Amino acid sequence: MDILGKSLIGFRDAEGANDSFRAWNPATGEQIENNFHSATREDVELAARLASEAFTLYSRVPSVQRAAFLKHIASQIEARAEQIVERAHLETALSKARLQSETGRTCNQLRLFAGVLEEGSWVNARIDRADPQRKPLAKPDIRSMMHPIGPVVVFGASNFPLAFSVAGGDTASALAAGNPVIVKAHPAHPGTSELVGRVIRECVRAQGLPEGTFSLLFDSGNGVGQALVQHPLIKAGGFTGSTVAGRALMNLAANRPEPIPFYAEMGSTNPVFLLPGALSARGKDIASQLHGSFTLGSGQFCTKPGMVFLSGRNISEAFLSEFRNKVAGSPQLTVLTGGIQESYREELQRRNARRDLRAIARGQHADTGSAFTVEVAVLETDVANLRAHPELEAELFGPATLLITFTDKEQILQAARELSGHLTATIHGTEDDLREFSELVEILKNKVGRIVFNGYPTGVEVCHAMIHGGPYPASTDGRSTSVGTAAIFRFARPVCYQDLPNGALPDELKNENPLGVWRMVDGQFTRQQL
Amino acid sequence: MDILGKSLIGFRDAEGANDSFRAWNPATGEQIENNFHSATREDVELAARLASEAFTLYSRVPSVQRAAFLKHIASQIEARAEQIVERAHLETALSKARLQSETGRTCNQLRLFAGVLEEGSWVNARIDRADPQRKPLAKPDIRSMMHPIGPVVVFGASNFPLAFSVAGGDTASALAAGNPVIVKAHPAHPGTSELVGRVIRECVRAQGLPEGTFSLLFDSGNGVGQALVQHPLIKAGGFTGSTVAGRALMNLAANRPEPIPFYAEMGSTNPVFLLPGALSARGKDIASQLHGSFTLGSGQFCTKPGMVFLSGRNISEAFLSEFRNKVAGSPQLTVLTGGIQESYREELQRRNARRDLRAIARGQHADTGSAFTVEVAVLETDVANLRAHPELEAELFGPATLLITFTDKEQILQAARELSGHLTATIHGTEDDLREFSELVEILKNKVGRIVFNGYPTGVEVCHAMIHGGPYPASTDGRSTSVGTAAIFRFARPVCYQDLPNGALPDELKNENPLGVWRMVDGQFTRQQL
Repeated sequence: MDILGKSLIGFRDAEGANDSFRAWNPATGEQIENNFHSATREDVELAARLASEAFTLYSRVPSVQRAAFLKHIASQIEARAEQIVERAHLETALSKARLQSETGRTCNQLRLFAGVLEEGSWVNARIDRADPQRKPLAKPDIRSMMHPIGPVVVFGASNFPLAFSVAGGDTASALAAGNPVIVKAHPAHPGTSELVGRVIRECVRAQGLPEGTFSLLFDSGNGVGQALVQHPLIKAGGFTGSTVAGRALMNLAANRPEPIPFYAEMGSTNPVFLLPGALSARGKDIASQLHGSFTLGSGQFCTKPGMVFLSGRNISEAFLSEFRNKVAGSPQLTVLTGGIQESYREELQRRNARRDLRAIARGQHADTGSAFTVEVAVLETDVANLRAHPELEAELFGPATLLITFTDKEQILQAARELSGHLTATIHGTEDDLREFSELVEILKNKVGRIVFNGYPTGVEVCHAMIHGGPYPASTDGRSTSVGTAAIFRFARPVCYQDLPNGALPDELKNENPLGVWRMVDGQFTRQQL
Repeated sequence: MDILGKSLIGFRDAEGANDSFRAWNPATGEQIENNFHSATREDVELAARLASEAFTLYSRVPSVQRAAFLKHIASQIEARAEQIVERAHLETALSKARLQSETGRTCNQLRLFAGVLEEGSWVNARIDRADPQRKPLAKPDIRSMMHPIGPVVVFGASNFPLAFSVAGGDTASALAAGNPVIVKAHPAHPGTSELVGRVIRECVRAQGLPEGTFSLLFDSGNGVGQALVQHPLIKAGGFTGSTVAGRALMNLAANRPEPIPFYAEMGSTNPVFLLPGALSARGKDIASQLHGSFTLGSGQFCTKPGMVFLSGRNISEAFLSEFRNKVAGSPQLTVLTGGIQESYREELQRRNARRDLRAIARGQHADTGSAFTVEVAVLETDVANLRAHPELEAELFGPATLLITFTDKEQILQAARELSGHLTATIHGTEDDLREFSELVEILKNKVGRIVFNGYPTGVEVCHAMIHGGPYPASTDGRSTSVGTAAIFRFARPVCYQDLPNGALPDELKNENPLGVWRMVDGQFTRQQL
């Protein structure tokens, strides 16, 4: 496929604005050829109108046909994987192995949602049967299920050019639930975005779906995304990125004449608690693995462990020396964009200059060449200082983490109670530790979307039970997840039918249960027909 | 029980502010003795702090104990029903029969949620088992379920002094999910609110629950409610009332430093479609029943049918003459407050003065005495005029409705497509009508929370499948319902556990499934243990 640098408005290639922008190769700091043209206001308008028109048809496409569409996208991405990975590698400097694995994850995710559609029970069908004899009033027949919400805008993320981008989780869940999608491509990997976008467009056409089922818009700035979030025909949005951008878009969504749900996953600092028993039993292993986790993908995971609490009383020398060694042996790492490089370097400099933080280890100094490189860094403080300076809880995007020592149980519990929302919290402990610190689990339930035990938060399993979200500021909506099959609910809403004749009901609610889905009938789960 | 006019802050009676206010008897237009004192800033602060402290304990109270608490509230309300109904009648002028039935509904609702807790499956337990052999990476064990969200503020509604007020749906669902509740009492029925509030407080004490599990605050104005919605320790809110107030509170909730979910159910105009076959077969009956529905409770139901589409080609004389007769025979009706009376009268006058609306029937003229009375009114226009003047779609709170004639199918479908969000839509039709207008059902799915067939929207069944909500402006969050057991999800959020040892997991997620709940295990629903 050729990269044309044009937004895909349904089946049309948009000419776009007169300006153009290019992607950068982070490994060289040089621009990559291929000009990309920002979408115009007219392009936004057309994409929204086509999506709204498509919704009428696409929302009624049977689940199994939507499943076929998702599987078709997966197989076509796999067929184009070589070119896509090549381009993504050029635009992100992420390793090809990582990008191949991310391709696999993206396709598995599409297939997992296809499976959810084929199984069918996700619609939460509920049936309360009539009772004409009930006194004083006859009881009506009430049946409810989930329906799609309307056209969805999805913002591609910089750090996962495939799994959280054009054909990523939000696109997959929105399409699965029956909604057209307009993707605003991340400007750091526009070529990758266009390639994947063209694959999806081909599948829309091949499956005979309406043109507006999918569009992809480019923009070098923020105007297109803002216009989409504010467009009256758009009914929901999904975003993965920075707190500042996520919050700004959420504000636009909430302050529209018709407010819409907007799911921004804005990353977090993902506290790790190294409890005494685990540290003394496995200090060295934990150090090595924790180093791997916080430097994974150059520290550009939303789930990067950015703060590590450990006992300062009997501090584990095995842990500390191994951690220092690993960090000292870390090469400079390439980050995704010049902006990330600059922010990281500036914030690290600020932190290094603070008297209340000690730099306990640093990796190879980042050279001053043109590549977007940064150095690995670890700082240290204690719980008392963290509590006095809650700004230290903020995410530092890149390969740095903060060790925080505590002296006793009550102190660490109090620090946990004062945490803001995070995507994850991790506990390393023995069974004894867990008994002694059982209160810690209780506290963390109210702080995060996922609690990890004796593992590492990077690596988010795509499955039915996954929750990738959490209380603000980890996300704008702690009731939702952006990974796993429960993500389908973010782009759906319930509708109930009162006394509608059986033949006019959606299949999922018909007496004979032709799709064989699980339903709650008079409060009992069953797959039986009525 | 005596009415003391004091806010209930946990177990304490607050002195409140120096000002005081009184309720009005709508039947006489006179003030009722008993002074009520608005809560102060300090009262708000204390209530929020107590609720936050209570959350730590109450959120861990086992489901069956929360169920016992809800059932205890129900039985204690029943034990006090006579006094409560007496006072509510005085403050609202709603008939005692209606208030007795509303008491029953309120208690049934509490018991229904108790049943949901006893059954236990509402937590949406999901388990994806580990696969240590998986390549390239071992698969972790992931388990998720719903947890309570934190202290909830509930705003009592004027029109249901019991079922949507202190012990109403939002309170029941929030307490069921494990959240402390602070109710802001509606100033139109403060005595009723205090009586019910004292009942709940007694039950909190009797059940040995933490003090801050429940508080009730009075305010003659908006300051207390605004302060509660903006308080950092409050984590969600529920409201039933006007669009202006609901939207203002939602904006406060969305624009907090930490945004919180805010569910405002703001009423709607609930379009009714009278299709030709039904009209010719049952015109007279429909007229009589529709009149009963739109004047029920003096037209003060959120689900009042406020716009009625009917074929103007072969307009049913049987329908029209019966409808006119019924309306002409309608006595003046008493509304809840002087404010409602004034708004209704003003808006009706405005509509009567419009040239594009015809007053086709009116009830007995409301006298100019001091009681809060209004007249029943019906106006008429056609679809073309509605489309030209979308402001006619706005709710007129009180016993009025608007007949809207259409000439052909395409015209009525187009009008349906242009509707904004409503709580309900109602279709009267024969099987033939439904076949011919099948597109209407498809359109309305995207416009409302509930589609009623050959019935009337007033009367909301409290059951598992009910959806009482709908797209904006019917509510601020069309993903949710404020009636029925699915309302429990508005005050809950999911948390997942990765590789947590079995003994440390919540009971719902343990291998042995000690509570016997339905779970999704590796994508399959089952109640089996692992």
